[in-house]
Amino acid sequence: MLYEYTLSAQREDFYSITPQVREAVAKSGITDGIVVVFCPHTTAGIAINENADPDVVHDLLIGLNKAFPDRAEFRHGEGNSAAHLKASAMGSSATIIIAKGKLLLGTWQGIYFAEIDATVSQRCAMPHKTALYKRFCLCAVA
Amino acid sequence: MLYEYTLSAQREDFYSITPQVREAVAKSGITDGIVVVFCPHTTAGIAINENADPDVVHDLLIGLNKAFPDRAEFRHGEGNSAAHLKASAMGSSATIIIAKGKLLLGTWQGIYFAEIDATVSQRCAMPHKTALYKRFCLCAVA
Amino acid sequence: MLYEYTLSAQREDFYSITPQVREAVAKSGITDGIVVVFCPHTTAGIAINENADPDVVHDLLIGLNKAFPDRAEFRHGEGNSAAHLKASAMGSSATIIIAKGKLLLGTWQGIYFAEIDATVSQRCAMPHKTALYKRFCLCAVA
Repeated sequence: MLYEYTLSAQREDFYSITPQVREAVAKSGITDGIVVVFCPHTTAGIAINENADPDVVHDLLIGLNKAFPDRAEFRHGEGNSAAHLKASAMGSSATIIIAKGKLLLGTWQGIYFAEIDATVSQRCAMPHKTALYKRFCLCAVA
Repeated sequence: MLYEYTLSAQREDFYSITPQVREAVAKSGITDGIVVVFCPHTTAGIAINENADPDVVHDLLIGLNKAFPDRAEFRHGEGNSAAHLKASAMGSSATIIIAKGKLLLGTWQGIYFAEIDATVSQRCAMPHKTALYKRFCLCAVA
Repeated sequence: MLYEYTLSAQREDFYSITPQVREAVAKSGITDGIVVVFCPHTTAGIAINENADPDVVHDLLIGLNKAFPDRAEFRHGEGNSAAHLKASAMGSSATIIIAKGKLLLGTWQGIYFAEIDATVSQRCAMPHKTALYKRFCLCAVA
């Protein structure tokens, strides 16, 4: 069972997608199994982290940018190699256990689409590009 | 098939959970499929790494703390944003293939609950908190 | 359904394994489900990243080596603790959704065996070791 969603990611941020994952799992009718959340982009990832204090996401963005900064040695012409690095550090997917029809997340866990490309806001500001839509896909398996 | 375990993680360390994963897979009766090991905490993760030389785990902790140190710019009041970062770098889950009823791990691979919150030992030392129990969950799918 | 492949990784690099994953999924006959690509080594990982511009892979190697350099404090006698770190940052596996018999990868995504051990080329140059073969395993689940 496959579900696809889009979101408007106009700037570097962690976008909560827990509601969409819950919705898809409910639609699937699967009560016990797993759900895979997959990001088909190479400069974004899927992360599971704190759902309560928005300061955590703020700090995640800072810490990732410090660990994986842009570098003079980088060759990729688009100038967003740091985002490619952060994408592989976060991972292209997350797998969550489904138990009794519900996501088996911890109390403080939320699922995020991590848009970690610092150049996204510049691209969105270009003429004729009012927004950059990103996709994510879910597959539930019993 | 869902299995839950707890462990006492009183300090920053990689705790081997390979025996528990093997036990759960044996109980599941699944001979060919996958097992998902999931960490429901946001300052810990699941990692697969060297099972033989304990110096590797020692070095992993050092390398992670150097790559993702605490920073003055961090806002999260609990003071453990670095652990949140390391958790997303390690990942909240690991997926291992089951073949002929056994985990298809490499010769040198072990599965670890990575408690990477440097503030854990201080919390454990607080009055009335002699230990901090952490959970992990497994789901085997055929 | 389990599939095993080997590749000759004689130096630090991201080796494309997308063709092998496509082949295994076709052989499996699974039209809707997931495929897990697993690396049974502790100094290599599986990553999903840009498939078009080889400069991205070049930059990924540089960025990983900067974030996780070798350190004087490391104790592991083999001298490749940095590779163990990078392996856990990349992850030991990738999970990709299968839809209508095809991998649900994004336009720019490829699957890579990430050989991130800088000491590999020295080992390969040792007498009687003309190449170091590495394995990866796939399991498709409907």
